[in-house]
Amino acid sequence: MPIFPIRPADDGLSIAIIDQRRLPAETVPLTLDSLDAVIEAIDSMQVRGAPLIGVAAAWGLALALRQEQSDATLDQAAARLLASRPTAVNLRWAVERMRDVVRPLPPPRRHEASIREARRIGEEDAAANAAIGRYGLPLIEALAAARGGTAVNILTHCNAGILATTAWGTATAPIYLAHAAGVPLHVWVGETRPRNQGASLTAWEFGQAGIPHAVIADNAVGHLMQRQQVDLCLVGADRVAANGDVINKIGTLLRGLAAREYGVPFHVAFPASTIDWTLANGLDCPIEERTADEVLQATGWFEGRPATVALTAPGTAARNPAFDLTPAHLVTGFITDRGTATASAAGLRALFPEARA
Amino acid sequence: MPIFPIRPADDGLSIAIIDQRRLPAETVPLTLDSLDAVIEAIDSMQVRGAPLIGVAAAWGLALALRQEQSDATLDQAAARLLASRPTAVNLRWAVERMRDVVRPLPPPRRHEASIREARRIGEEDAAANAAIGRYGLPLIEALAAARGGTAVNILTHCNAGILATTAWGTATAPIYLAHAAGVPLHVWVGETRPRNQGASLTAWEFGQAGIPHAVIADNAVGHLMQRQQVDLCLVGADRVAANGDVINKIGTLLRGLAAREYGVPFHVAFPASTIDWTLANGLDCPIEERTADEVLQATGWFEGRPATVALTAPGTAARNPAFDLTPAHLVTGFITDRGTATASAAGLRALFPEARA
Repeated sequence: MPIFPIRPADDGLSIAIIDQRRLPAETVPLTLDSLDAVIEAIDSMQVRGAPLIGVAAAWGLALALRQEQSDATLDQAAARLLASRPTAVNLRWAVERMRDVVRPLPPPRRHEASIREARRIGEEDAAANAAIGRYGLPLIEALAAARGGTAVNILTHCNAGILATTAWGTATAPIYLAHAAGVPLHVWVGETRPRNQGASLTAWEFGQAGIPHAVIADNAVGHLMQRQQVDLCLVGADRVAANGDVINKIGTLLRGLAAREYGVPFHVAFPASTIDWTLANGLDCPIEERTADEVLQATGWFEGRPATVALTAPGTAARNPAFDLTPAHLVTGFITDRGTATASAAGLRALFPEARA
Repeated sequence: MPIFPIRPADDGLSIAIIDQRRLPAETVPLTLDSLDAVIEAIDSMQVRGAPLIGVAAAWGLALALRQEQSDATLDQAAARLLASRPTAVNLRWAVERMRDVVRPLPPPRRHEASIREARRIGEEDAAANAAIGRYGLPLIEALAAARGGTAVNILTHCNAGILATTAWGTATAPIYLAHAAGVPLHVWVGETRPRNQGASLTAWEFGQAGIPHAVIADNAVGHLMQRQQVDLCLVGADRVAANGDVINKIGTLLRGLAAREYGVPFHVAFPASTIDWTLANGLDCPIEERTADEVLQATGWFEGRPATVALTAPGTAARNPAFDLTPAHLVTGFITDRGTATASAAGLRALFPEARA
């Protein structure tokens, strides 16, 4: 794996990340040594992707406990992290897990325990990526067999890749494994306006790995499916409701609708930490509304430097919902770190019988 | 009407256009005084929009006949214009109409006749806009009545507005009329990647006219319909097949699929010249593939100047189909200059009984 989107820094206390807003032009490492720095990185999307946000939040809590280990410090840090981004549930999951581990301990033992637990969350996420890859691989192999040696065309959305996790990504893990196994494949990378994580992050990852791919405008996905140029849709998730509804990057719903219309299998890959057992129905999930500027502008690169251009006349209004809901009935199947399942309450329950709301 | 996207220049021979690639930052007039200039303007999308391309092509033919009026000149000019953009049928329609009028005449009379006919085509397009507005207005009024005074939310795509025609646009004509009649409305303007005609042209038009609107990423249209925030989809067309299939800007299909799923009326507005009676089925329409750079880059404005930023790492591949097919069964109805119709062979036939393939 050529990229480490998050890891403990050499001092054993801070964390090292890659500033994802600078990719693909530059790989700029950043050291985060305080809770404030972690919150700023999450809020500004230097760190993004549901699983990675969870890991970053865990480290944020550990950093908060460095100087001061009181209940008040712990609770305040947790509350601030929970408020930083509302949609991805991994953040809440990680913060609650950290708090559950740390709070019962006497304050002098809390900092060390928080570092240990943050490390563990990161390692478990990497293991989950690997498991998702193993469970998803047969799906791609079966399509390859059906195509008799011509490339399997896979459509992704946004970035559910290495840069969204601690290892091989969620939606991309089966793709990396299939490519390594010599399965011929080609990935359609949706650019994913307004922030273009597909164009700037996912395409860059595949370029690094030598995986054949082409970027497309988000508008093109219906056309490609209609013309039988997509064999499989494979996306990640920011939150999965207990009934199997999927909340993911804005535009996922359109891909789900087109996939059903044209008979394209539509699979969603995520680790257990993405399931929100307290959310009965996806419609009740808060959808983050981000700044209008993301829609009114495009940020890219000009002569090697980050550059932002205006797309509209000054003063134009915009709306910018960052996520949408793909109802479970549009989803062919789930690929989790525990195995595959139908996108339903029963499917999730069968995989995670121990889960409680 | 504050904008004249095309008109005869003061010399009575050349034509004056607005360079649409410079909007919304600058309103730059251009004079086209030769066939080459017209072809270049169409090819580079200084002039775009199916009806306007047709009018521009008619003037191109008139300009070609200025120096030389032979059959060979006429046929060669027609062939070059037909090759300039493959999808919008208004271009073919206008070129064939011009040729049919001019070719039977003795060469000395051809130039003057071509100017007369080009003018007529432009005037007819303006009249068609007005008629589309009149036939579409009741649709918006009925939705307003049903909403009891709160604004009707209309979703557009790309630019099927003033800038795509010679007057009030196709999809926008009913919107301008409704706004003028005091009907409360709000327009969602899809940005329309990769060239952002929604963000840069349609939003600018509505801004000029004081019509409430907000730009959205193309990815957001499913979410807005799912949350009952769209009352009506109103789009234009680049070509309509004899069976009612609609070929329009890439991404229209996704809007059609979402509209059906969420019960949102989906209407397509176009003049008679957009119907291709020789095309039995939309699937047989050629879909223009434009340069990958449009997807790999975004063009906008930086400090008042046009600027282009790269969105991907150098050497990234892209695909760029510029149009897609929305099957007739996804379309609630047509709004034409002859009246409204169901989106079907029978619906079109009933409106245009005289038409021949």
